[in-house]
Amino acid sequence: MGTGAISVAVIRRLPRYYRYLGELLKNGVIRISSKELSERMGVTASQIRQDLNNFGGFGQQGYGYNVEYLYNEIGKILGLDQKNEIIIIGAGHLGQAIANYVDFARRGFIIKALFDIDPKLIGKQVCNIPILGMDTLQGYMKDHNIDIAALTIPKDNAPQIAADLVKWGIKGIWNFAPTDLQLPKTVAVENVHLTESIMRLSYKIKDSSEKEENE
Amino acid sequence: MGTGAISVAVIRRLPRYYRYLGELLKNGVIRISSKELSERMGVTASQIRQDLNNFGGFGQQGYGYNVEYLYNEIGKILGLDQKNEIIIIGAGHLGQAIANYVDFARRGFIIKALFDIDPKLIGKQVCNIPILGMDTLQGYMKDHNIDIAALTIPKDNAPQIAADLVKWGIKGIWNFAPTDLQLPKTVAVENVHLTESIMRLSYKIKDSSEKEENE
Repeated sequence: MGTGAISVAVIRRLPRYYRYLGELLKNGVIRISSKELSERMGVTASQIRQDLNNFGGFGQQGYGYNVEYLYNEIGKILGLDQKNEIIIIGAGHLGQAIANYVDFARRGFIIKALFDIDPKLIGKQVCNIPILGMDTLQGYMKDHNIDIAALTIPKDNAPQIAADLVKWGIKGIWNFAPTDLQLPKTVAVENVHLTESIMRLSYKIKDSSEKEENE
Repeated sequence: MGTGAISVAVIRRLPRYYRYLGELLKNGVIRISSKELSERMGVTASQIRQDLNNFGGFGQQGYGYNVEYLYNEIGKILGLDQKNEIIIIGAGHLGQAIANYVDFARRGFIIKALFDIDPKLIGKQVCNIPILGMDTLQGYMKDHNIDIAALTIPKDNAPQIAADLVKWGIKGIWNFAPTDLQLPKTVAVENVHLTESIMRLSYKIKDSSEKEENE
């Protein structure tokens, strides 16, 4: 079954399923009904069944879902059964925070190097990961099989560096720069726009307080 | 006009409108048609008109949108016309990255303090913002009018600290811990789940390469 027709909304939810199933697995839970899973996750059982049906459905009537099987299958759908090699462009606080994030390695996301233009940072290490000079990036991309670049750099530099990375064979860009990158359709992009995120929080706070006032 | 019925999808898009309008304003653009804005933003003109109609619609037939007016109105909807005072719980790399993010202050998000349990960090400053001990948090919350707490702490500690913050009057939690917080409906939550974000990127990379193979 092809996965071409799956909606963005379902894809957005898959990593959350994966996280909950991983926790169940760690706690020794072998099987779970869509009802139990729905109560834990705070979504309807019907949504869970619909979402998982997109992938051929892994549940059995009267048995529920086999946690390990479902966890592994969702992992495969997400591409987590393969290693993803990552570089981080920008070794500032955010770049270093990502390099320090232990959760990634056990999901198969291997951070190979950070790149920066700051001579004070170049040559240092973060969690045993080297910080290299930006002038060595092209050669590095040629010699290594890098899948993903995280961009933790100012927005003015991001479009040019992203274009270079595409030229040098990057498959996906994890963009933390507060700008939208225009890239070929063959290159995947995932944006983490922190300013937009905190604006949404601000809206929700305002919305909650208005509701309270009207009650 | 009440804002209660606006869909989550529209709210998700508003900060992006705000960003684009802010750039137009900076570049001295006074008015823009929904067609021009749609070309820049890569969405349909009809979606732009629909989205902005939710707020009474700010466009005029044959004139388009007044950039400054629309920017300010969306800012008000997002609550950016008021200051939001923020604390950061966890002064590790991610907490420090957020404290360093200059973009926040000019949107009215004022970071007042970081909190940590590490004696090596307590007493230091990040961008002139003090790092305080976790044991002083309750007193601090009593003496200050804090709106938002960013949680950049391990997931095991997050639920308890979030519950305490709610008890001490927090209005919104910006949650970077890889777990879902169960909070009263009166408290706003916005999650930034980095592991889920990179899993979505992994999916998109896999999906792009499968499409290429089928072509």
